[in-house]
Amino acid sequence: MSKERVQIFDTTLRDGEQVPGCKLNTKQKLTIAKRLDELGVDVIEAGFPISSPGDFNSVVEIAKLVQNASVCGLTRANKKDIEVAAESLKMAKKPRIHTGIGTSESHIKYKFNSTPEKIIERAIDAVRYAKSFVEDIEFYAEDAGRTDNEYLARVCEEVIKAGATVLNIPDTTGYCLPEEYGAKIKYLKENVKGIEKVTISCHCHNDLGLATANSIAGVQHGARQIECTINGIGERAGNTALEEVVMILKQHPYLNLVTGIDTTLLYSTSQLVQQKMGIIVQPNKAVVGDNAFAHSSGIHQDGVIKNRETYEIMDPADVGVSQSSIVLTARSGRAALAYRAKNLGYELTKDELDVLYPEFLNFADLHKEVNDEGIHQLMEECKINFSKLQL
Amino acid sequence: MSKERVQIFDTTLRDGEQVPGCKLNTKQKLTIAKRLDELGVDVIEAGFPISSPGDFNSVVEIAKLVQNASVCGLTRANKKDIEVAAESLKMAKKPRIHTGIGTSESHIKYKFNSTPEKIIERAIDAVRYAKSFVEDIEFYAEDAGRTDNEYLARVCEEVIKAGATVLNIPDTTGYCLPEEYGAKIKYLKENVKGIEKVTISCHCHNDLGLATANSIAGVQHGARQIECTINGIGERAGNTALEEVVMILKQHPYLNLVTGIDTTLLYSTSQLVQQKMGIIVQPNKAVVGDNAFAHSSGIHQDGVIKNRETYEIMDPADVGVSQSSIVLTARSGRAALAYRAKNLGYELTKDELDVLYPEFLNFADLHKEVNDEGIHQLMEECKINFSKLQL
Repeated sequence: MSKERVQIFDTTLRDGEQVPGCKLNTKQKLTIAKRLDELGVDVIEAGFPISSPGDFNSVVEIAKLVQNASVCGLTRANKKDIEVAAESLKMAKKPRIHTGIGTSESHIKYKFNSTPEKIIERAIDAVRYAKSFVEDIEFYAEDAGRTDNEYLARVCEEVIKAGATVLNIPDTTGYCLPEEYGAKIKYLKENVKGIEKVTISCHCHNDLGLATANSIAGVQHGARQIECTINGIGERAGNTALEEVVMILKQHPYLNLVTGIDTTLLYSTSQLVQQKMGIIVQPNKAVVGDNAFAHSSGIHQDGVIKNRETYEIMDPADVGVSQSSIVLTARSGRAALAYRAKNLGYELTKDELDVLYPEFLNFADLHKEVNDEGIHQLMEECKINFSKLQL
Repeated sequence: MSKERVQIFDTTLRDGEQVPGCKLNTKQKLTIAKRLDELGVDVIEAGFPISSPGDFNSVVEIAKLVQNASVCGLTRANKKDIEVAAESLKMAKKPRIHTGIGTSESHIKYKFNSTPEKIIERAIDAVRYAKSFVEDIEFYAEDAGRTDNEYLARVCEEVIKAGATVLNIPDTTGYCLPEEYGAKIKYLKENVKGIEKVTISCHCHNDLGLATANSIAGVQHGARQIECTINGIGERAGNTALEEVVMILKQHPYLNLVTGIDTTLLYSTSQLVQQKMGIIVQPNKAVVGDNAFAHSSGIHQDGVIKNRETYEIMDPADVGVSQSSIVLTARSGRAALAYRAKNLGYELTKDELDVLYPEFLNFADLHKEVNDEGIHQLMEECKINFSKLQL
């Protein structure tokens, strides 16, 4: 069975940048956009052009710079927003306008003080107007996660007729469970006329820690685009993390889905975004955190030393990390101590290890981590004879 | 339909502490254990007693301190580990020994150089021996996520006969997709004799960002215990985050599952663990991150000001956060500016806002965030007349 392509729509520079305290200037945005293009994302959402002169200018510059990806600008469903977005995207090789409107009862009633029928009219008008500027139009049904499926299907059908090429089904508030979000995509796939002509897109938020799982459920049920950010940054608890969904698809070949991402650039791209945005991921961040490939418990270290695959499902090199690491703590076993000591040139006999290990545990109980210096110090204290290896 | 209880098994002090660079001393562990007991967790895994004298001592002290939760110690499937764990738990009101062995092909072959039949014998022996010390025995089938279901069911059946009260089905390497992990729990529920007498437990790792979703899939298919840590800390990419699974069950009442957690203590508990462990969560960490309830985009702020529920699915007060916040950036709209200005005593007319807003955007384009001081400065510069409110 041939593999189907899932498009990666990166919104680090738009939804990701909606992080309090994380404003990027145009130069920083260009550096990130260039890297995203090299990484192999299919679409770069470059900003929300109407929102400020600075954002407009950034979209203009990114549109000029990007060579491979489509460049996309966000708008609300009104003429002014769409005109400004179209203007900012003029120089893009592959421009896309991303327009839309809230479709949940809560959004229709409280945000727009409107009715379901009027919202559909506004959606159609926005897509038609955007289509007069560019060919590639993505429509978002904001708060689709809490929108009644039957109404959502009607909205989708109408905007397809109006010219939408991509349908974005956002779980704006991060409320859906994976089976619920997957079922929503399946419902649209089965009930919207013309759905085969467009790409369904997942845009999930992480308020309950489910953005990644929801996006995967989406593509398992027929979506073919995932909207995501580097490191999962974004409004509130953030968006789907690009590195997570890409590695899930790569490590589960039976799903028959592929992306165009060069995964060996994931780690360095994560570092770049952390540095430019000043938002450091926690050490246990999946795929790109400092500890993602570090083993500290004795049981795990022992297993990894015998065979890497006992505790590792990804080769660190696949994401651009040079190697997994064996970190010595009070939780480490004899095998790990012997392994790390050997790397420093100490070839220990069983008897020597018997003497050293209890000393090591006492030392480690007092320290957070035993580094190379600590091992040398322990050797000195234990006065163990050792034979220097030819390193 | 009456709600069923899901037990929360906290392993912050065992699996969570397996974080490189995060060694806690006994006093720090006691502070955290006391708080976990107040939070309402059902089980506290206090450590791995055989691993070091420091860890043994911590388990002894935690066992004495804890009033409500069961206190649990980890062992491998051998007599020495079990004896030491039993000794460390002597003073616990409700002691539990957690023993087990690797059951996947990779673990049996490379880690133990053994056979499936011999592994079952070792599992039975370990459970029987542990049962001679305490009544409550949890068995873990390490790397169950990659273990053949039929063999896993045989292991489970045998350890139930040997006296296990809880069956832990760990996705040790964080590889499973939610539907796969859920199907595994369902298979055991339907194919293991005696399964109705024991509690099935989910222990998921976050290597691909799916720990939370997998744990929820587990309880949807019959598991009734979730093993998790505060802030999702742990080996490599960490464990299931306690705060995420607890809030998912609370916010999805139709699942008919409840926990005993006092959710209003979640935020302060997260802060305590961050401080004691020196591991700071990223601002967009779900539920407990600094930005989890912060709104910075104009569209979202506008919605939240009109009605909180347009963009918030949880009341911040439910997790112990005083209020959601409206953060002013270049992405903010007129409504947010007017709202924040009003809170500072500036009641702006529409005309005044028309003058102020473009100035605000230019100011915000140059700054990451506009704070109260910035608003005062803008007002001064625009020489807007304003009427001080009675604050």
